[in-house]
Amino acid sequence: MTNLRATSAVALALLTVFAAPAKSQNAPIIHDGEYDFLRAQYGDVWDAQDAEIDARLKEIRDANGGDRPNILYMLIDDVSFGQMGNRALNYVTGFDTPNINNFAAEGMSMMRMYTEPSCTPTRAAFLTGRHPVRTGLKEVKVALIGEGLSGDEVTLAEILGEAGYNTAHVGKWHQGDIEEAYPHNQGFDWAAFPLHQQAQLSLMTREALQANNMVGWHSTGQSNQFQMDDRFKPFGLVTGVEAEVGGLAREVNFEAGEEWTQAHYDEMNARYQRQALEQLERLAGQDEPFFLNYWPLYPINFVYPEQSRSRNGGFMADKVEVVDDYFGELLAKLEDLGIADNTIVVFMADNGMFKQYQPNSGLSELVYRGGKLDHLEGGVRVDAFIRWPSGIEAGSYAGDIFHVSDFFTTLANIAGATEFIPRDRIIDGLNQTALLLEGEGNGRRDYVYIYEGTLLRSVVKGNHKMHLPPPGVPGAAAPVFNLLHDPREERALVGTSLWSGASFQDMVKRHEKRITEFPHLPLGKDEPYGGIENLRPESERARDVFMSWQ
Amino acid sequence: MTNLRATSAVALALLTVFAAPAKSQNAPIIHDGEYDFLRAQYGDVWDAQDAEIDARLKEIRDANGGDRPNILYMLIDDVSFGQMGNRALNYVTGFDTPNINNFAAEGMSMMRMYTEPSCTPTRAAFLTGRHPVRTGLKEVKVALIGEGLSGDEVTLAEILGEAGYNTAHVGKWHQGDIEEAYPHNQGFDWAAFPLHQQAQLSLMTREALQANNMVGWHSTGQSNQFQMDDRFKPFGLVTGVEAEVGGLAREVNFEAGEEWTQAHYDEMNARYQRQALEQLERLAGQDEPFFLNYWPLYPINFVYPEQSRSRNGGFMADKVEVVDDYFGELLAKLEDLGIADNTIVVFMADNGMFKQYQPNSGLSELVYRGGKLDHLEGGVRVDAFIRWPSGIEAGSYAGDIFHVSDFFTTLANIAGATEFIPRDRIIDGLNQTALLLEGEGNGRRDYVYIYEGTLLRSVVKGNHKMHLPPPGVPGAAAPVFNLLHDPREERALVGTSLWSGASFQDMVKRHEKRITEFPHLPLGKDEPYGGIENLRPESERARDVFMSWQ
Repeated sequence: MTNLRATSAVALALLTVFAAPAKSQNAPIIHDGEYDFLRAQYGDVWDAQDAEIDARLKEIRDANGGDRPNILYMLIDDVSFGQMGNRALNYVTGFDTPNINNFAAEGMSMMRMYTEPSCTPTRAAFLTGRHPVRTGLKEVKVALIGEGLSGDEVTLAEILGEAGYNTAHVGKWHQGDIEEAYPHNQGFDWAAFPLHQQAQLSLMTREALQANNMVGWHSTGQSNQFQMDDRFKPFGLVTGVEAEVGGLAREVNFEAGEEWTQAHYDEMNARYQRQALEQLERLAGQDEPFFLNYWPLYPINFVYPEQSRSRNGGFMADKVEVVDDYFGELLAKLEDLGIADNTIVVFMADNGMFKQYQPNSGLSELVYRGGKLDHLEGGVRVDAFIRWPSGIEAGSYAGDIFHVSDFFTTLANIAGATEFIPRDRIIDGLNQTALLLEGEGNGRRDYVYIYEGTLLRSVVKGNHKMHLPPPGVPGAAAPVFNLLHDPREERALVGTSLWSGASFQDMVKRHEKRITEFPHLPLGKDEPYGGIENLRPESERARDVFMSWQ
Repeated sequence: MTNLRATSAVALALLTVFAAPAKSQNAPIIHDGEYDFLRAQYGDVWDAQDAEIDARLKEIRDANGGDRPNILYMLIDDVSFGQMGNRALNYVTGFDTPNINNFAAEGMSMMRMYTEPSCTPTRAAFLTGRHPVRTGLKEVKVALIGEGLSGDEVTLAEILGEAGYNTAHVGKWHQGDIEEAYPHNQGFDWAAFPLHQQAQLSLMTREALQANNMVGWHSTGQSNQFQMDDRFKPFGLVTGVEAEVGGLAREVNFEAGEEWTQAHYDEMNARYQRQALEQLERLAGQDEPFFLNYWPLYPINFVYPEQSRSRNGGFMADKVEVVDDYFGELLAKLEDLGIADNTIVVFMADNGMFKQYQPNSGLSELVYRGGKLDHLEGGVRVDAFIRWPSGIEAGSYAGDIFHVSDFFTTLANIAGATEFIPRDRIIDGLNQTALLLEGEGNGRRDYVYIYEGTLLRSVVKGNHKMHLPPPGVPGAAAPVFNLLHDPREERALVGTSLWSGASFQDMVKRHEKRITEFPHLPLGKDEPYGGIENLRPESERARDVFMSWQ
């Protein structure tokens, strides 16, 4: 690893928060080749519609005293399509989501929301509007990595900030353990977040061992006879930190030498919920509109509750009910603050359920096959709901395809921040404002490229999906599925595959050609744990051991 | 087959329509052992609640001018749980069910409706309130069988008729091709129905061959070189007949020597729909309340439409939309007639999708694994909705278990026909009136026995389900599934299986003990095609060839 930069926090802040797009803001946004292929067919129609949409956005703004909408984006981990927001299916799962169900009825249910197949990539796609393969981000590991979201990437928080929004991030971040990747260095004015993801906080505890989830990992689970490497298992990791834009992060609520416990994890979840409510109140009190990004840690959890509250009782399923409560509290707070009408609220999951823990987690494959880490629909199709009383029809549904990266471009458009979207790189996210305001049938996307890490595994076009053949195997031989006839992707039809093989391969070519024109950018790399002012001795030691092999 | 009875139509009618229960009507109904086991725990509570329910039923009747409710029961073939009545899931399947969706919101969604795993058994369970294994009924074959629902069975139509209801049956019947089994000999005042099920009408056509569903079956599909047996394939089968109670049946709309076509099948579907509407109008004009039993033939269908109307386009999926239209017309007719408020309407499927035809039929496994003919949840869990504005809360859901046989006892109770339920045999159907009127949590059943034909394959208790071990294998070794953690029944837990093995085996013992006390009754057997006044020559010939091996 030769590119480590030992930059000071201040210098990094200058580099990252104000990372300026390189080209003229009047130039068109550079989208993937497949979009241009569609645009060649529909460009005139879309341009005319966009003029209407601009007028409609102005009307909405006028009706709200000239104010642009606030944005509350709530994203949770590892829940499969159908497990939230649908009362009928609550009876299948055995856990209830009444607040999400009601919320769905007040806004638009996005019936074909595609994410990336796992946490870090989905979140990176949302933040940057780009497939994470373009930014080098893949699933980020549990322990020290010295990697993360590059300061050269431009996030939604940054462009909304440039357009005058106040911004805050609360909860999971999972974009790396290097200073430039921290949320307060990526456009958020204030942030509270665990430095890694939740696994080391919730899975590597004594309680998780006792719940039969980590036998042999926690030191009390097996005797250490014959053990040599004391650092094979993660140790001394930084837990939760808080920071302001451009400042140093400070680890909170955890003492040197302390052992992390489930009680601490539960407390951290409760704290983030409190902080999300506090931030909502604080941000609502300011003149500018706000973007609050709240990514709870639950339902990821590996310990059974003392008393199950759901009929299901699974250690993750039970926490979906807690998250539903959390969401209900935020919605009530929006009402109390009198800002619900002109606040865009999105609630969704980041990918399918964590299938390695079924059935004990209580979450299980439902309609679609597969889960987290899969290119199958079960990995990338999630429940997603969006409400904006001022602009989106209550109780509506959208059958159009939407990719999580589309929020970047769409929210930028609604917030008047499109000019700050960089023009020197590919932006996968499309402007889907017409879909939100005009309803289903007005989407701009009929395709999705699905990567597992750096490998392109599937291509979706309309209701068809090709599982890509291994390198060197002709595309015509690859299986194609009709997702309406076969949502579980179990029965490819040779006729379908044969006719569509060439068309799918053309899609791959259009995608790859654009990559040749705009090559992937490097992942951020640095010494881990930069910019933390109160590193515990065990964290310093962990960093030093990590650096010994760099 | 030695028991064939060549009884005349009139004698049969006397035997069957008025088949009188043997024991005192004040005696308790004989239920399965498992119910008595529950009753020993809840009897006092239930008796007290039943007194309230009786009072409530009286209130409802008084509010409707002293009239008991009409009953419209609409049952369709082979649609899996989640494929109807839920707009969100319409986006998964690609076919829309707006009328059923709206209907669901106007009544109660029965979230744990269990049927038998296939058509004939489910319909027999509804008609008799008994598991079909007790009546000898199993899946009835496509061609001549000389078997059917015994005249000794007592149907819902018979007991409602005795209680003063007018009754009519339209559409699929599928209870056998012997005279005593015909609907007009089993309690319906009037009936129009195909004599067999739909397969020979819709699958064995030239068009189905051309749709790639029956290559080598229709005579045009392969040359007949070397063929010897001219009667291996069904031939000369009776198609649709109509009859009045106690009368002879008359085949309609089909000439001697004619070949059955898809156009004929489509026309037959349209005709039954017309007749259902006509019957509704006729029955509404009479003083007595009515029971209209309408079992459409669609969505069973094996030919692609000339122009698909659904996004899905599958040859069965497309017909679900047609059935939704049909249902909408019936509901509109109820409104027009001014009788919607005091008519109990049930809409449901008889078992899971026909998995042999996925994915081309457009219907595919969804939430639950398996389909028609399986003891898995995918075989026996269906969408089911019930509306009764005078008595059932709109927009309600019931998570309680309900078996299709429960309609027998429940509808009898609401209609004031309980006294006519026979006391000389086991009645599996439970009186679930409390569930309908008081809402979820008031069910009387936490168990289901699931047979495939004559073999007991699974036992459900609450959220747990045991797949029964083969004979001689200890129950403790059989897999048990937690249906909330693992709705697809893929991951049995040895701990769960071990603790519950004995409990499940006790359930089986209680079930078997009652069978010893009340042995299964014989299936009805007779010469096929009795009581049809205009048999075509080819049908007579088919019967004669069939009888040659009896």
